[in-house]
Amino acid sequence: MAVYTQVSAEAASELLEKYDVGELITLKGIAEGVENSNYFLETSQSRYILTLYEKRVDPADLPYFFAMLDHLHAAGCMVPRFILDNNGNWLQNVAGRPACLIEFLSGVSVSTPTDAQAFAAGAALGEMHHALQDFKSERPNSLGVSAFRPLADKCGDGPLNMIAAGLALRIREECDFVEQNWPGQLPLSSIHADLFPDNILLTGDTVSGLIDFYFACTELRAYDLAVTHAAWSFSADGSSYDDNIGRAILDGYQSKFGIDEPTKQAFLILARAACLRFLLTRCYDWINTPDSAIVTRKDPLEFLRRLNFYAKQSDAYSLIG
Amino acid sequence: MAVYTQVSAEAASELLEKYDVGELITLKGIAEGVENSNYFLETSQSRYILTLYEKRVDPADLPYFFAMLDHLHAAGCMVPRFILDNNGNWLQNVAGRPACLIEFLSGVSVSTPTDAQAFAAGAALGEMHHALQDFKSERPNSLGVSAFRPLADKCGDGPLNMIAAGLALRIREECDFVEQNWPGQLPLSSIHADLFPDNILLTGDTVSGLIDFYFACTELRAYDLAVTHAAWSFSADGSSYDDNIGRAILDGYQSKFGIDEPTKQAFLILARAACLRFLLTRCYDWINTPDSAIVTRKDPLEFLRRLNFYAKQSDAYSLIG
Repeated sequence: MAVYTQVSAEAASELLEKYDVGELITLKGIAEGVENSNYFLETSQSRYILTLYEKRVDPADLPYFFAMLDHLHAAGCMVPRFILDNNGNWLQNVAGRPACLIEFLSGVSVSTPTDAQAFAAGAALGEMHHALQDFKSERPNSLGVSAFRPLADKCGDGPLNMIAAGLALRIREECDFVEQNWPGQLPLSSIHADLFPDNILLTGDTVSGLIDFYFACTELRAYDLAVTHAAWSFSADGSSYDDNIGRAILDGYQSKFGIDEPTKQAFLILARAACLRFLLTRCYDWINTPDSAIVTRKDPLEFLRRLNFYAKQSDAYSLIG
Repeated sequence: MAVYTQVSAEAASELLEKYDVGELITLKGIAEGVENSNYFLETSQSRYILTLYEKRVDPADLPYFFAMLDHLHAAGCMVPRFILDNNGNWLQNVAGRPACLIEFLSGVSVSTPTDAQAFAAGAALGEMHHALQDFKSERPNSLGVSAFRPLADKCGDGPLNMIAAGLALRIREECDFVEQNWPGQLPLSSIHADLFPDNILLTGDTVSGLIDFYFACTELRAYDLAVTHAAWSFSADGSSYDDNIGRAILDGYQSKFGIDEPTKQAFLILARAACLRFLLTRCYDWINTPDSAIVTRKDPLEFLRRLNFYAKQSDAYSLIG
């Protein structure tokens, strides 16, 4: 959410010489996305995002992200393409970092979606899953179920219990639950895995972009729906479930992809796993981010409250209807 | 250089209802300027910067900045105007902060200006000074000569000498020098006071914008030329003076405003004062910014080296020619 590596106008102009995209007009560092450095870059022809990959993205994963976005774009999904230079390369080196010039998409991310926006988001997710059915590249989910317990270990029981009394035990019990009940028979797909409202651009009630694919991976397809449901359907602090938004996400998805019985039966387990994933990574960041850092630490308990909601439901039919 | 206050798309849309500028299309936090929060905001009609004023800008000074930019724009200078809402107001409250919607100007700031770009910058400064001759609002220079010694006291001799051996004494001797030789008879004007390459937007070799007026104040007009000369004419670390760039700045200025004999005679004193100002504020920030902060601390010694250069010159005629 900050600019970590400075790119001079001269370096950007030099980069643009490799492309057939016109002359540099504007270059502004923007606060966006995971821990990359991002620039809004305008040329005499069009507008782009210039992304320099910093700590969290492994350059070895970039070909997978490129292929996925290229595939989705070809299928008509609203995703930002990586731009090819005159030699057909999409991967560059800028200021010593792996870097890509990426299509700029208009639209804004809302903080408090309306029902219509939630329906559009669910529908966009369904369309994406439809388009990914014939996408064959794979990337293991480094934040999947098997990563939960090691992540809890890395946090340590003491620090976890400093965040909330009894949290360490609660997390271990949830790890037991999702491991024992994981619906491994559901179909795999490439998924976005992080489709928070932040990562959907809207123009009014229309989705103009799905962005920030840097957690995309091969995983149970239905897990993506559970992540999206958990990310969209609650008040920011997680204490209050919005049934209208939750239903709109699921209805939108159903309108484009459908939700079958096995998915409905597994939904609560997947939703609890999704909450546990964000609870754990936020706990880890909370414990390992110094108080003085400008980067805002996200409250882990926002996802413990969501987890509690899903754990209280006897079945998913009350949510999906 | 970071976004300190988050503005939601909903809050931005609500703000835009006060204006006749179209619907919100894009909103992105940008890393720019002094310690304000800045957003790139695009509507269906045009593009803007939304600035929220944080610590360093006193809201009481905003009417002066507004009047100065309005005056300069009316005179044809390339500066960003504050946009008036439908009730004629330019000052708003967004997310609890004083905020202004400001014209977006294209162009990039270069890190290593060419001679032609330096000439254009000097000329733009001259045009601005010409336009400001009939601008009568005033704002005291809170970082003027009388502020130097108190700023050195706030730094403390010990911390100053930690930055460089003997720095505290050197600074006090320079304070003596500029106080005793201050050319107080030179004409006053509103000046930019911070016209670094960062604060000039260029499209090719043409100035498309003078920005970041938040240090603007009433001061000896020629001091602005000295600040610009010191900011542009050296290698980044201050160790190497570029005579071509220095002459281009002065020639550009001369082409639009002229440089009279009293200015030439006072130039070295003003340039030493300019270097001392940035040396002191950078020392203060260096001493008071924690190591762990993401905000980059600028090396104070870059301006001690510039100061040494000016102090070594016997007169300004070798620079101005």
